[in-house]
Amino acid sequence: MAKQLMDLKLDEEFELYVLLKEAKKRVAKNGKNFISLVFQDPSGQLPGKYWDASDQDIKQFVQGRVVLLKGKRENYMNAPQVRIMAMRLAREDEPHDPLGFVKRAPMTRTQMQEIINQTIFEITNATYNRIVRALISKHSDAFFTYPAAKSNHHDFAGGLAFHTISILRLAHSVVSQYDGIDAPLLYAGAILHDLGKTIELSGPVATEYTLAGNLLGHLSIMDAEIAEAADKLGISKDSQDLILLRHMVLAHHGLLEYGSPERPKILEAEILHHLDELDATIMMIQGALKNVDPGEYTDRIFGLDNRRFYKPKPTVNPENNKSGQPSQSQLF
Amino acid sequence: MAKQLMDLKLDEEFELYVLLKEAKKRVAKNGKNFISLVFQDPSGQLPGKYWDASDQDIKQFVQGRVVLLKGKRENYMNAPQVRIMAMRLAREDEPHDPLGFVKRAPMTRTQMQEIINQTIFEITNATYNRIVRALISKHSDAFFTYPAAKSNHHDFAGGLAFHTISILRLAHSVVSQYDGIDAPLLYAGAILHDLGKTIELSGPVATEYTLAGNLLGHLSIMDAEIAEAADKLGISKDSQDLILLRHMVLAHHGLLEYGSPERPKILEAEILHHLDELDATIMMIQGALKNVDPGEYTDRIFGLDNRRFYKPKPTVNPENNKSGQPSQSQLF
Amino acid sequence: MAKQLMDLKLDEEFELYVLLKEAKKRVAKNGKNFISLVFQDPSGQLPGKYWDASDQDIKQFVQGRVVLLKGKRENYMNAPQVRIMAMRLAREDEPHDPLGFVKRAPMTRTQMQEIINQTIFEITNATYNRIVRALISKHSDAFFTYPAAKSNHHDFAGGLAFHTISILRLAHSVVSQYDGIDAPLLYAGAILHDLGKTIELSGPVATEYTLAGNLLGHLSIMDAEIAEAADKLGISKDSQDLILLRHMVLAHHGLLEYGSPERPKILEAEILHHLDELDATIMMIQGALKNVDPGEYTDRIFGLDNRRFYKPKPTVNPENNKSGQPSQSQLF
Amino acid sequence: MAKQLMDLKLDEEFELYVLLKEAKKRVAKNGKNFISLVFQDPSGQLPGKYWDASDQDIKQFVQGRVVLLKGKRENYMNAPQVRIMAMRLAREDEPHDPLGFVKRAPMTRTQMQEIINQTIFEITNATYNRIVRALISKHSDAFFTYPAAKSNHHDFAGGLAFHTISILRLAHSVVSQYDGIDAPLLYAGAILHDLGKTIELSGPVATEYTLAGNLLGHLSIMDAEIAEAADKLGISKDSQDLILLRHMVLAHHGLLEYGSPERPKILEAEILHHLDELDATIMMIQGALKNVDPGEYTDRIFGLDNRRFYKPKPTVNPENNKSGQPSQSQLF
Amino acid sequence: MAKQLMDLKLDEEFELYVLLKEAKKRVAKNGKNFISLVFQDPSGQLPGKYWDASDQDIKQFVQGRVVLLKGKRENYMNAPQVRIMAMRLAREDEPHDPLGFVKRAPMTRTQMQEIINQTIFEITNATYNRIVRALISKHSDAFFTYPAAKSNHHDFAGGLAFHTISILRLAHSVVSQYDGIDAPLLYAGAILHDLGKTIELSGPVATEYTLAGNLLGHLSIMDAEIAEAADKLGISKDSQDLILLRHMVLAHHGLLEYGSPERPKILEAEILHHLDELDATIMMIQGALKNVDPGEYTDRIFGLDNRRFYKPKPTVNPENNKSGQPSQSQLF
Amino acid sequence: MAKQLMDLKLDEEFELYVLLKEAKKRVAKNGKNFISLVFQDPSGQLPGKYWDASDQDIKQFVQGRVVLLKGKRENYMNAPQVRIMAMRLAREDEPHDPLGFVKRAPMTRTQMQEIINQTIFEITNATYNRIVRALISKHSDAFFTYPAAKSNHHDFAGGLAFHTISILRLAHSVVSQYDGIDAPLLYAGAILHDLGKTIELSGPVATEYTLAGNLLGHLSIMDAEIAEAADKLGISKDSQDLILLRHMVLAHHGLLEYGSPERPKILEAEILHHLDELDATIMMIQGALKNVDPGEYTDRIFGLDNRRFYKPKPTVNPENNKSGQPSQSQLF
Repeated sequence: MAKQLMDLKLDEEFELYVLLKEAKKRVAKNGKNFISLVFQDPSGQLPGKYWDASDQDIKQFVQGRVVLLKGKRENYMNAPQVRIMAMRLAREDEPHDPLGFVKRAPMTRTQMQEIINQTIFEITNATYNRIVRALISKHSDAFFTYPAAKSNHHDFAGGLAFHTISILRLAHSVVSQYDGIDAPLLYAGAILHDLGKTIELSGPVATEYTLAGNLLGHLSIMDAEIAEAADKLGISKDSQDLILLRHMVLAHHGLLEYGSPERPKILEAEILHHLDELDATIMMIQGALKNVDPGEYTDRIFGLDNRRFYKPKPTVNPENNKSGQPSQSQLF
Repeated sequence: MAKQLMDLKLDEEFELYVLLKEAKKRVAKNGKNFISLVFQDPSGQLPGKYWDASDQDIKQFVQGRVVLLKGKRENYMNAPQVRIMAMRLAREDEPHDPLGFVKRAPMTRTQMQEIINQTIFEITNATYNRIVRALISKHSDAFFTYPAAKSNHHDFAGGLAFHTISILRLAHSVVSQYDGIDAPLLYAGAILHDLGKTIELSGPVATEYTLAGNLLGHLSIMDAEIAEAADKLGISKDSQDLILLRHMVLAHHGLLEYGSPERPKILEAEILHHLDELDATIMMIQGALKNVDPGEYTDRIFGLDNRRFYKPKPTVNPENNKSGQPSQSQLF
Repeated sequence: MAKQLMDLKLDEEFELYVLLKEAKKRVAKNGKNFISLVFQDPSGQLPGKYWDASDQDIKQFVQGRVVLLKGKRENYMNAPQVRIMAMRLAREDEPHDPLGFVKRAPMTRTQMQEIINQTIFEITNATYNRIVRALISKHSDAFFTYPAAKSNHHDFAGGLAFHTISILRLAHSVVSQYDGIDAPLLYAGAILHDLGKTIELSGPVATEYTLAGNLLGHLSIMDAEIAEAADKLGISKDSQDLILLRHMVLAHHGLLEYGSPERPKILEAEILHHLDELDATIMMIQGALKNVDPGEYTDRIFGLDNRRFYKPKPTVNPENNKSGQPSQSQLF
Repeated sequence: MAKQLMDLKLDEEFELYVLLKEAKKRVAKNGKNFISLVFQDPSGQLPGKYWDASDQDIKQFVQGRVVLLKGKRENYMNAPQVRIMAMRLAREDEPHDPLGFVKRAPMTRTQMQEIINQTIFEITNATYNRIVRALISKHSDAFFTYPAAKSNHHDFAGGLAFHTISILRLAHSVVSQYDGIDAPLLYAGAILHDLGKTIELSGPVATEYTLAGNLLGHLSIMDAEIAEAADKLGISKDSQDLILLRHMVLAHHGLLEYGSPERPKILEAEILHHLDELDATIMMIQGALKNVDPGEYTDRIFGLDNRRFYKPKPTVNPENNKSGQPSQSQLF
Repeated sequence: MAKQLMDLKLDEEFELYVLLKEAKKRVAKNGKNFISLVFQDPSGQLPGKYWDASDQDIKQFVQGRVVLLKGKRENYMNAPQVRIMAMRLAREDEPHDPLGFVKRAPMTRTQMQEIINQTIFEITNATYNRIVRALISKHSDAFFTYPAAKSNHHDFAGGLAFHTISILRLAHSVVSQYDGIDAPLLYAGAILHDLGKTIELSGPVATEYTLAGNLLGHLSIMDAEIAEAADKLGISKDSQDLILLRHMVLAHHGLLEYGSPERPKILEAEILHHLDELDATIMMIQGALKNVDPGEYTDRIFGLDNRRFYKPKPTVNPENNKSGQPSQSQLF
Repeated sequence: MAKQLMDLKLDEEFELYVLLKEAKKRVAKNGKNFISLVFQDPSGQLPGKYWDASDQDIKQFVQGRVVLLKGKRENYMNAPQVRIMAMRLAREDEPHDPLGFVKRAPMTRTQMQEIINQTIFEITNATYNRIVRALISKHSDAFFTYPAAKSNHHDFAGGLAFHTISILRLAHSVVSQYDGIDAPLLYAGAILHDLGKTIELSGPVATEYTLAGNLLGHLSIMDAEIAEAADKLGISKDSQDLILLRHMVLAHHGLLEYGSPERPKILEAEILHHLDELDATIMMIQGALKNVDPGEYTDRIFGLDNRRFYKPKPTVNPENNKSGQPSQSQLF
């Protein structure tokens, strides 16, 4: 594989296509403009400063564009950065699709579509089935390419669908273990619960909150989408099925303090909330553990009350005597 | 005016048309059924027990029906109650409209319609104007007859519109006092903020929460109604006006803990929240103060963190000497 | 099956062996002693009063004894109760084992032992394996017969082991879905997490908290048991494995406010906390839903912040036209 | 109007009279003293450093003095600052009154006195009237020149009186809208509620908290002032009027957590708390909105739980066809 | 000692002078008035009902009067009560001072005065000394006879002074153990901290909150008293000593949520808060423990977050062998 | 006494033995390694940077070593630091014991041992006595040399024993003042309450939390130690004495939020919690007050909810006239 940003060594010079993840105009001490940049490719990201920026530079080097960057990897204040030697926009005949430069879900879109397809077959209730089909179809491009969050967990292209699928897998386990769960409702709620993020967020590249995202939030956005879809499908607003499905979406944050206007009031909504939290928690901890060595603690994880987590050292197996072995005998 | 429930004296016998506010089937110690009733007319309410109820009795004497009640006002455990001597359903040619037996707002529907009409003229923004018109028309009967709550404040027929109008009056004061407020947005938000209660609650008589009320809440209900109305009026879902108006409704409880999925993020939403709270607070305290004598404390008010309020005794003016008089001189 | 307490009709006379779940001496208005009793069999429980109790009666009719009860099922204040006609202790040759009269887990002890056995084989880490074996052996009788709580969830004989097994099943699902989880640690923690309840609680019949339960709690009780077991097995107190395993137990309530002296600081402890909460939550909601009809709300559930849950009515399938059917077509 | 600090351009040289808002002695890397300064005039403020400060410089260039400053407006770390070229204290015959260099309320003292005067006439209760007169007279200079806060809202000269008058205007609206409010008590409470800030704060220039402000707070300070004034006016300590008025002041922060030793226990105290909060909130949001462009969010507002507020873009009126116009027709 | 209320046995007839601790007019089921009474003497209290009360009865048998009661001790609903056989007011020549019928502090007034006297000598700071003298003199009767609370801790005649003295004893220990504490300030603050209760409460008999108590609280009441006393003694309002002393009183509840408008900001105020809490806590627990047998738990203690406390059983000394004895050997 | 770090003046050159309190490898802007150091002796600490560090330097100059440092005291960004001129490890024949370079408790180990000895004699209960002896013996070296915390209060060598002794002194005062306290239990609990810090912390020099400290906490660590010690001493796990003693340790943080798995449920545990908090609070405030001048406020104290404390100015005695003197007359 070609060299990427994270492969560079100190003082190494390079020429790479990279995405401008951030680009902010600033005024330097000498009164001239410069652009404060963050470069990104699937391996990670590095900051850099483009000095003495002309008006033309400021206009073209904006967040979300792909550039051909010639530079040197340096160190500043103990943190790595890029010294920019030359930079120009990528041409049409070069790699220039921003989506090629962001981290991606560990499943292809086709794989994920297949799983969603199969799950929809299991949604045997007509109301849930028709609404899910209508809304997934309407938002399918965004659903399979957007991240599940601007930062925190599943903050990579395809993260939204991947997170949804992860919850569906847990939901299948729960359905098979406990009696009396309305599986179609649980699956339909799981598929729709975060779908409003396709409107709350700006997209997979240089992700920001939209105005609707900031002022309405993805719960209310999707709730209104469901009501509207039902209206168009001729489903009555008083239908219990419709109310339950809307409740699944509105209640999935579990607590009012977390932005759900209602706490879960049906079993399936309570379960969805737990599975959502479980999956997000595991992803956040695993993500943080990747960055530290065994025997160390992670940085504080914002989404988990700023807790640190410990990465255990490999167990040294005790000497090879009998008392130090796990017993193979039957206990009962 | 004819005698009403609250006019009755201890041991007084009477014959009155009254509403069955509550009617619950119970089993007595002797194994027979009886009906636990609450009678209501605009003056107030009294409980009573209908013993040895037949299946026919249980079927006809249900919550929300008007009856001709012959009884005697007695005392039980320090609380007044009715001993039922005879009871039958009111006939078509007698007073039988339940709405005639509940407390009512201190304004007529015509007066309230007039004020809403005038305010809509002041909503000069086309988006707000058209959505408000569409939704008030759609829900107008309920809007002018429903209470604003099952209990707490404005729990009388027409209370929803009356509360709305009260907030509009405060809003006009604020708009005239402070610069830079978007008056059409504030008025539109005020009119719509509680309109979802027409779906959240069951009606003006024997008011209960509906399933949608319990599982979705009036904020999300109205939010979806606005989105749907906008869709039908051809207003884009990305329109800033639409997003702001939905935000007014979603944010009006002010805090996530109070059921708003977003806290106010525009000036007008913050103001609406404060005026809503102020009007409800004054209504709750005034209602509680009515029931106590000067020098006493009210019962604990649930909606105000269970606080009690003191009703001051009339000020006894100090004797008529100069030092005891408010000065009439100019201070500055 | 023989008639049980919950099968009795109003005014039905009966003679049954039942357990005295509660027995409290009281003084009646006439100054004589009576015993306030709660009778229990696997079908449920009913209260009754044993009037004019002699000293001998008070001495023998104590909580936890099985009696032959001759009585009549009556109603008092809308609640069913037993009028006691005659009552004597069950003899040795009659059913007299209290365990025969309490609700039981839906699995036999043998089935549960088998699952624990299999799981221990999967605990391939020697430290975890040996400690789990030692402690499960030491407390095995209690582990397989105690409830998981005095009330709330899994409050039936065998509930402790059943709850543990339920978590183990969820844990297996999680291990198979996510990479990088230390399965032996997760399974060992799951088996031990509530084992301290065998000391915290008094037993499967007429369950009470012990002094150690009240003053130490089952987390600290089991933590000390693990340390002691390790000491006897020659495992160093500084061993990372030992510290991690103790942490699994101490942190499993997740929050300091819930009695964990440390919040989870390793991935497996965080997962265990979530699975524990998920299983308990489902059990509590399912238990409450059993007592209500479709379309109704449960009583408030103490262990779930006093929330009520709605039991949906069966979905009425829309008429058999195409638009009302779940689609069978492929979405993608 | 003469040039002011905020009118200066990058690299512009200037000579202006300005106030030293802050002046702190520091030691430079070279071991010599310098003075870290903040210059202020009614247009705003700018920082600067006075290098190589002699003992004489340190003694004369202190917070609260007016200086003639010769300097150049530069940029440092993206923030504007002043390079000091020369600086001397303003002479008696030059502008040297610090009050001339701070932001001021948008009303003159005379206008504000007039409004307070009129309101006192409406305080027809002798006790309230006499106490208000006594205390406003005692503190009148400070009342009309102090800010209402060190920072946050109304942090300008005259802000205390202006905030008080703003609340009085709202109070008049409320009195005219609702029955049963004791207007004299509400107005008297409104005038006195923050008057303790004349002792809590050091003054309108370079405002700091005094020792009494820090250790007692303006609520307790004014409460004791009222008690003392009543004593001197011969008003009994047990007078209900006196107790109510003291309660208005003590309870106006509404919650114990906000420093009120008692929550409001009379209607007027509850209303005063709401109006105080409403006025402060509007002022804080309006102040923050002034600093951002339409379509942007304000900085986090400390006094409003660190929330950001959105400044909407001007509504683009839809094309001039009928459906896009606010309707002029009568709704009812 | 003469027989008292708590000495009576079931069905015992008696004739005793007792205090009417509570007396509330009620209407009986038959429509006639009765008085619901609580009788009190130093041994405890018993309820009783005075049936068919005439207007004259209602007028004379009021809370706080001493009566000669002829009655019989009965049982009602498992709780003891008095059946009143005859009752009249105590005459001037009989025991009729209510103070003779309430529980009293375990020290005489003279003893307590002596301790306060001695402590004042240790208050060597002139400001503290003079203010303490002035206020203790002004309120001395109430200070030595009032309880420290209506219920909770020190709810007996003289409890206020006794609680104060208890804190002074702890304060002396702290002063002797730690350097750098301003002892005069600590002692002065301790003496004054609850003195406002002489105005907050109605007195030692049938204690209620006064209007000032309810609307101002004893912290603000005493704060204003100190300010006024200082004014009369010619002590400047800006005196640091005065501000510190007022702060001691205002901050002694420690937290805003507990009614202190300021948290402690000097060492002595923080210490006073801790000692106040410690003394009250010990008194509440000891009081509750008195009512239960060893091996049992107390009722929930309201003032201690509704916790129950365990009363240990006496330690059974292990058999008299060496290993069971506390060692007499030197450890180091 | 020889010169120490805190005695150095700006620009003074020196040669001193000092401890490396912290030593962290960093990469400089030029790509070379340097070591970021904190030097410590009993007078205090100063930072410094060791530039161009060789691998050998990095290996030897680690945290916890004593070095002979030749340097110059400079200023950087208003903060003092050391410019390193030369540095080498201290030799065996030079001062090289790290313990000689940290702050120490104001009592010798011998003095503290003596007090612990005497207290153990007062622990007349055999169970408490034997467990305390066993555990103090086991951990005596650490108990008398460790600090009580990494930072906050008693963060000096011997601080753990000193804090324990301070609590014991307070406990003696409380025992002598109040009846009914189990003194042996209180003293035993006080001695053991923080003893787990000998395992939670790494030692008196360059103190860090151990893995057990982070994942178990000193409460659970000591709880398990007590259980184990009891087991070895043949004390039954069900012994009330043992359970009470373990509860003393587990409950001493007072609140679940502070890491106690149980709140205090016996009088002695509640008292221990209060005394622990009182001693820690006084130490923290006194420590902070030492660093500021009279009339100033301390920095925010993390362990006290980030409060600042005021250090009063010395009282200026009022002029020598009679009214300004503390009265010498008897008050009562």
